[in-house]
Amino acid sequence: MGAALSTITGGGVATARGFRAAGISAGIKANGNPDLALLVADAAAQVAAVYTTNKMLAAPVLLSKEHLNRSGGLARAIVVNSGCANSCTGDTGMRDARAMAELTAQVVGCPVEQVLVASTGVIGVALPMDKVRSGIPAAYEALGADQGPAAARAIMTTDIGPKEAAATISIGGRHASIGGMCKGAGMIEPMMATMLGFVTTDAAVPKALLDRALREAVDQSFNAITVDGDSSTNDCVLLLASGASGVAVDEASYGTFVEGLTTVCRELALAIVRGGEGATKLVTVQVTGAASSAEARKAAKVIANSLLVKTAIHGGDPNWGRLICAAGRAGVALDASRAGVTIGSLVLFKDGQPHDELAPAAAEYLKGDDLSIGVDLGAGSASSTVWTCDLSAEYVRINADYRT
Amino acid sequence: MGAALSTITGGGVATARGFRAAGISAGIKANGNPDLALLVADAAAQVAAVYTTNKMLAAPVLLSKEHLNRSGGLARAIVVNSGCANSCTGDTGMRDARAMAELTAQVVGCPVEQVLVASTGVIGVALPMDKVRSGIPAAYEALGADQGPAAARAIMTTDIGPKEAAATISIGGRHASIGGMCKGAGMIEPMMATMLGFVTTDAAVPKALLDRALREAVDQSFNAITVDGDSSTNDCVLLLASGASGVAVDEASYGTFVEGLTTVCRELALAIVRGGEGATKLVTVQVTGAASSAEARKAAKVIANSLLVKTAIHGGDPNWGRLICAAGRAGVALDASRAGVTIGSLVLFKDGQPHDELAPAAAEYLKGDDLSIGVDLGAGSASSTVWTCDLSAEYVRINADYRT
Repeated sequence: MGAALSTITGGGVATARGFRAAGISAGIKANGNPDLALLVADAAAQVAAVYTTNKMLAAPVLLSKEHLNRSGGLARAIVVNSGCANSCTGDTGMRDARAMAELTAQVVGCPVEQVLVASTGVIGVALPMDKVRSGIPAAYEALGADQGPAAARAIMTTDIGPKEAAATISIGGRHASIGGMCKGAGMIEPMMATMLGFVTTDAAVPKALLDRALREAVDQSFNAITVDGDSSTNDCVLLLASGASGVAVDEASYGTFVEGLTTVCRELALAIVRGGEGATKLVTVQVTGAASSAEARKAAKVIANSLLVKTAIHGGDPNWGRLICAAGRAGVALDASRAGVTIGSLVLFKDGQPHDELAPAAAEYLKGDDLSIGVDLGAGSASSTVWTCDLSAEYVRINADYRT
Repeated sequence: MGAALSTITGGGVATARGFRAAGISAGIKANGNPDLALLVADAAAQVAAVYTTNKMLAAPVLLSKEHLNRSGGLARAIVVNSGCANSCTGDTGMRDARAMAELTAQVVGCPVEQVLVASTGVIGVALPMDKVRSGIPAAYEALGADQGPAAARAIMTTDIGPKEAAATISIGGRHASIGGMCKGAGMIEPMMATMLGFVTTDAAVPKALLDRALREAVDQSFNAITVDGDSSTNDCVLLLASGASGVAVDEASYGTFVEGLTTVCRELALAIVRGGEGATKLVTVQVTGAASSAEARKAAKVIANSLLVKTAIHGGDPNWGRLICAAGRAGVALDASRAGVTIGSLVLFKDGQPHDELAPAAAEYLKGDDLSIGVDLGAGSASSTVWTCDLSAEYVRINADYRT
């Protein structure tokens, strides 16, 4: 299937045919940085969505869910602001989210339920609606098939740069594109953290297959990364399919589609980890020997979120005991006499016995910035891979100063 | 019952009659700091123990469990080293832990199964047994009823100071003492983290009541604190009752005993949080309105471990949205329309509506170093209190440099 897939350098959310994007400075952020993005489909697109699992749902999440229910899973536009999450904002928040959707529907010329809304930024503060009101028509004027990069910039908060990815898939000799953008740098964890992802495709995909493909791709990408174990009230990944390529995805070609979608989502997700708040290293955590896939994922997440693991990696400290210790408290099956730890290709602990003489070589390996660590639980044959970053003093600085 | 209890300033693990302690420098730590502690009971004492829930158990934990089983819950001595955890050390580790116990049994003159062993420090490195062998007789020579402070110093790793507490209880007009010491500064969480606690009493307490009292007290003290959510392979709290005061605890006086024990354990536990690695503030996290006590505790722990909460508090940022957001992802019942957040006595979010106008007052409050934050889940009437500290750049520095 490799030949059926190739990535598109420089591609993004407006790469697929049938979509235009825009990103402008509406004045929501005090510093004047871009803060309003608009994505418009030429005709109503089929939508699949994955939302945060947080029980406190922000107003835009509540509204987007409601709209997709009312529209039968179709959307013409997504309006996104950064700088204010419109979360924990009570009745005012819902009113403001509705107003954002209504204004967007007016300029686009579509039913209001075909507009989805997303917000990211500070929680508990109301949106500056005067800025939003003047911003939406301005964003509409700026729409273009070449404005994906501008949209990717407008959804950023503490991100160090825009995050875009795209790929082409070949089905029956014809080509379709999949492209997207995302934001997120901290408060990232499982099941949708303060992370927004928007992916488009010009393939035509029936709703059931689109939903299944998004869940599969997100499980192996956005839900397999963690920066700090926190997850937010606002997160969502929205996937829109225009069908403009004329390529139809069915059960036979589903594998090709989901492979392309996973590639794009994983590239976006890894960009989040690489750009994690204060991050200096990308860390691939592989857990093997688990009793089940769920236990493998659970242990991998505990290791990936351990402050002691993350700080040791930051310091280049081959403190492999912290890895097995984190696995030991994950609440999963572990056979201490068969467990093992690897740093890169170095086996520092195997069958319950230490090989600390390899610690100097591991310290040398840890000077790199793209690292792999592994824990064998010795309890079965299931495995899972997640990605995380190191924890630096810079993370603390960023998050201690965010609002004030 | 208040009159039946008073704390003893300067008291510790050798305050109760029938116990002597010692702490010396055996050379296990390269920097020459004290690293070997010994606690000896004049006669075999009744023991209650709580161990780490980590599935990777260090050799000294495995050995102490084995010895208590063999001795029928009696012990004459506890030998403790810092600087090396003797964890993930395979067969060598078990051999070394046994040798520590045997040497101690020889100098004390008791059956080997009446010796308990504890170790704390780096994981995966073998104990320098030559230092341990010469250290144990030296520690025995240094034993004294006034050497509690020396013992408390010898069990420290990254602790900024020794941690001791003691109290007197009055039962039937007679007095008994309870005193203890502990160590722990990071890798602290629930269910016994890299935390060692040793508590003695001169009350006579039947084994069943002693076990029950320790579990109750630990639940409201050591298991209600968190520094970084990590828990180690070595943790234990050991409680020894000598009966030397002649005061017998029975069902009728159990309440007084457990109150005294909880007071001592809580003072020790709070000393760990206050001295948490890089900590500058003690934070009391109170969750109310939970559907059950277990859910209240679960939510309180998620809030107390949230990096975003801990960094916001470090920066004095009244970012109350992070509190409710953490509660929202705790996997417990939460009614968004009835939930609330307090910082000190300031109500920043109530019944789903924000009161962000109080943020400046909350920022002022957060300049203090003994803080209370509260989240009402709006889903029931159960509550739980846990204690944590802020997360500073210093924590990262300490843990990135620990070994190297």
